[in-house]
Amino acid sequence: MAKELTSRKENYSQWYNELVLKADLAENSDVRGCMIIKPYGYAIWEKMQAALDKMFKDTGHQNAYFPLLIPKSFLSKEADHVDGFAKECAVVTHYRLKNDPDGKGVIVDPEAKLEEELIIRPTSETIIWNTYKNWIQSYRDLPILCNQWANVMRWEMRTRLFLRTAEFLWQEGHTAHATEQEALEETKQMIDIYADFAEKWIGVPVLKGHKSESERFAGAKDTYCIEALMQDGKALQAGTSHFLGQNFAKAFDVKFTNKEGKEDYVWATSWGVSTRLMGALVMAHSDDKGLVLPPKLAPIHVVIVPIYRKEEELAKISEKIDPIIAELKKRGVSVKFDDNDQRKPGWKFAEYELKGVPLRMAIGKRDLENGTIELARRDTLTKETVQMDGIEGVVVDLLDQIQDNIYQKALDFRSENTTIVDDYDQFKELLESKGGFFLAHWDGTAETEEKIKQETKATIRCIPFDAIEEDGGVCIYSGKPSKRRVVFAKAY
Amino acid sequence: MAKELTSRKENYSQWYNELVLKADLAENSDVRGCMIIKPYGYAIWEKMQAALDKMFKDTGHQNAYFPLLIPKSFLSKEADHVDGFAKECAVVTHYRLKNDPDGKGVIVDPEAKLEEELIIRPTSETIIWNTYKNWIQSYRDLPILCNQWANVMRWEMRTRLFLRTAEFLWQEGHTAHATEQEALEETKQMIDIYADFAEKWIGVPVLKGHKSESERFAGAKDTYCIEALMQDGKALQAGTSHFLGQNFAKAFDVKFTNKEGKEDYVWATSWGVSTRLMGALVMAHSDDKGLVLPPKLAPIHVVIVPIYRKEEELAKISEKIDPIIAELKKRGVSVKFDDNDQRKPGWKFAEYELKGVPLRMAIGKRDLENGTIELARRDTLTKETVQMDGIEGVVVDLLDQIQDNIYQKALDFRSENTTIVDDYDQFKELLESKGGFFLAHWDGTAETEEKIKQETKATIRCIPFDAIEEDGGVCIYSGKPSKRRVVFAKAY
Repeated sequence: MAKELTSRKENYSQWYNELVLKADLAENSDVRGCMIIKPYGYAIWEKMQAALDKMFKDTGHQNAYFPLLIPKSFLSKEADHVDGFAKECAVVTHYRLKNDPDGKGVIVDPEAKLEEELIIRPTSETIIWNTYKNWIQSYRDLPILCNQWANVMRWEMRTRLFLRTAEFLWQEGHTAHATEQEALEETKQMIDIYADFAEKWIGVPVLKGHKSESERFAGAKDTYCIEALMQDGKALQAGTSHFLGQNFAKAFDVKFTNKEGKEDYVWATSWGVSTRLMGALVMAHSDDKGLVLPPKLAPIHVVIVPIYRKEEELAKISEKIDPIIAELKKRGVSVKFDDNDQRKPGWKFAEYELKGVPLRMAIGKRDLENGTIELARRDTLTKETVQMDGIEGVVVDLLDQIQDNIYQKALDFRSENTTIVDDYDQFKELLESKGGFFLAHWDGTAETEEKIKQETKATIRCIPFDAIEEDGGVCIYSGKPSKRRVVFAKAY
Repeated sequence: MAKELTSRKENYSQWYNELVLKADLAENSDVRGCMIIKPYGYAIWEKMQAALDKMFKDTGHQNAYFPLLIPKSFLSKEADHVDGFAKECAVVTHYRLKNDPDGKGVIVDPEAKLEEELIIRPTSETIIWNTYKNWIQSYRDLPILCNQWANVMRWEMRTRLFLRTAEFLWQEGHTAHATEQEALEETKQMIDIYADFAEKWIGVPVLKGHKSESERFAGAKDTYCIEALMQDGKALQAGTSHFLGQNFAKAFDVKFTNKEGKEDYVWATSWGVSTRLMGALVMAHSDDKGLVLPPKLAPIHVVIVPIYRKEEELAKISEKIDPIIAELKKRGVSVKFDDNDQRKPGWKFAEYELKGVPLRMAIGKRDLENGTIELARRDTLTKETVQMDGIEGVVVDLLDQIQDNIYQKALDFRSENTTIVDDYDQFKELLESKGGFFLAHWDGTAETEEKIKQETKATIRCIPFDAIEEDGGVCIYSGKPSKRRVVFAKAY
């Protein structure tokens, strides 16, 4: 079969690349590092957007839209930000083309050079805080709770569909607050929302914690993150929420008069998740037959494949199945009835397995006689013959079960692949042989962090919020004292 | 009052600019020509998006996403397209900044020059047809019915919020078909959807028709458009749908094998509406007190203003009003209860009139005694005292009435400002004194069209689909024979 996948065991990386292409999620474009998100992939992203957008709005956020282009000089206003961020980006230098006087085609018009170059936003803190300056005078103008759904661009040299692309889609929340406490609470609230979304919608358990200082967002005082574990034992950072302190307010001179009538700088947060979540979704659950989609994000919940030879048989199947489809749709189940006569049932079975459709029904002549349907689950690859009567309730229940099962499976996998380790040699060995998350003591210095990274390629994924204080812990690398374990892993 | 508007009569253009700012819809950014869409404006745009997106999906379209950047050489592949389009656009020439060796800030790294410059998409026909080439082999792959919600950029020299900005948000549909007939039907279907949306949602009546050849989209065989009339008597093109023939298929070599086994080029359409619709919405309905929003697009349907002196009075009002709010929300009505004690009721009344909230309820001590509420309509500026009992049904009915009334008012205005004219001098005089749409005979030549435009600034807005064939008509300008009247107007 043309669409057969490389197995995960054989080559996990190749399996991922092939799966994204063959399941019609996305493909590379002729523009270096920029992807095309195909309709099937985009339909999943839209479901992610809808769920997240509701969570944002339920917590009082509003959407807005800020410019794509940022004046170059804005980037250097926040010192850490420009150091950590702004270098690899797309630079607009001209605003006009003209016909090539020497022949065909168009050339850049040298007379249309911009006085100041513009950068395609790699993230929008600078342009947004430059705007907030005009929106905020008094504590009465606060908080500002804005979110933006947008495209951003970072000129990555090595790209991979969804995981690392030059252009990607994301949302970026940017909030402004009167007090440090309120900004900290917002930062925490948003990482909790991301964790909820990851677990309840994508079905991926995540660790929540702080980034170490060296892994922090450029310009942030603290970065909270959620970290997920992929099937190859590598970690994937799935979302971040930054406490920016007063850094951007100071850089863009955003002051307000507080309740006591005194002037102060505004407190800030920013937080984002991106189409990278699509990569997490694919890598966490899918198998050698293709995608495994959690029902809550699946564009199609149930595919129905009629098995027939003659047109009359199809007509009889349709007659029986149409009211079932209508009832399923009424219950919010998205159904595809695939009666395409150009393809055989076997081909369709494989195709919908590849596409990760959670449930498949097959119905043939004998089923009609017996009043049954064959029902197959994508997540367990099991099938059973069930009564047609009351099938709608069975389907709704099964979709819930599949959502739960996918999460539980990922959670079990993570438990099996989380190791508490106290010995550096053992850590190095297990990192290579098994992978996964490692809970280890660390002395808290950037030097040790960097050395471990150089020697093992493992990084500190997070300092978990729920880390337990331990007396007498010693750093796995330096032997110096450590109060709590942090999470190491190789990461995407 | 700080927020008082210039009147429409005094200066329509200034009225518009002030209104967009003061109603918190949008503002200019520090990046030339790029706007910031503020939360209140964006909430309206989101409602437009949701309604349109549903209409697209109900007619079988799917969303996808294509790259922001387009290689320069793509633009010159379709000859008419590059002539009509590609000149004024943002050009990316470099992909990296570096620290300025001479001091502070960052400069463009001269070593990071792109081999081929990239253009920020002004529209996506080229990159999409370059992609479709790989998606289409046989008639079985057709039709492709894709839509994209995206930002685009055209380097306009004179910009106005929503009406003409360098960056704007839009949707662009790009479809591929096996036959000319099917592509023509799609082109027509989409202009019908746009007209439906304009009339039923924005409440703006539109004329549907063909563009003249000189006003066609660059690269199209035919352009259908919807044209709306603003309160100052100027026309606004609100949406276009293009029949592209096989032009882009030929430019990007997109062939398919048809049912008969023969190779042919693929037939194409494209169609789009943008944040310009926000400008149409504002200019068609609003008055000297502010926005008038059609209920179907209003972020807040009903604002409730409690009139009270003491906290106990507010508590009593809340007790009475809370179940009403709950019931309204259940019926899909969006309600804001504004008990902010920093602002007086009079200020709030003016503020919500400015923001165009369709209905306002005020409730005070005497209302509580009498079981009544004061209900005010934004569209007619009338108010009445109504019984609290059963107010929910009254509100739902009124919102429907307001939606209808806004449309009817705009329709009446258009009727009053549409003139059938046969004399060129009279045309010129009425164009200046009254404005509006003019139905006039035209000889069908680009020369005449151009001369009329130069002499009067009026353009042919469209050749209406429903134009009646007339015997013996003569061109208003040249006196040559004409078969049907076309629509002239000055336009935005």
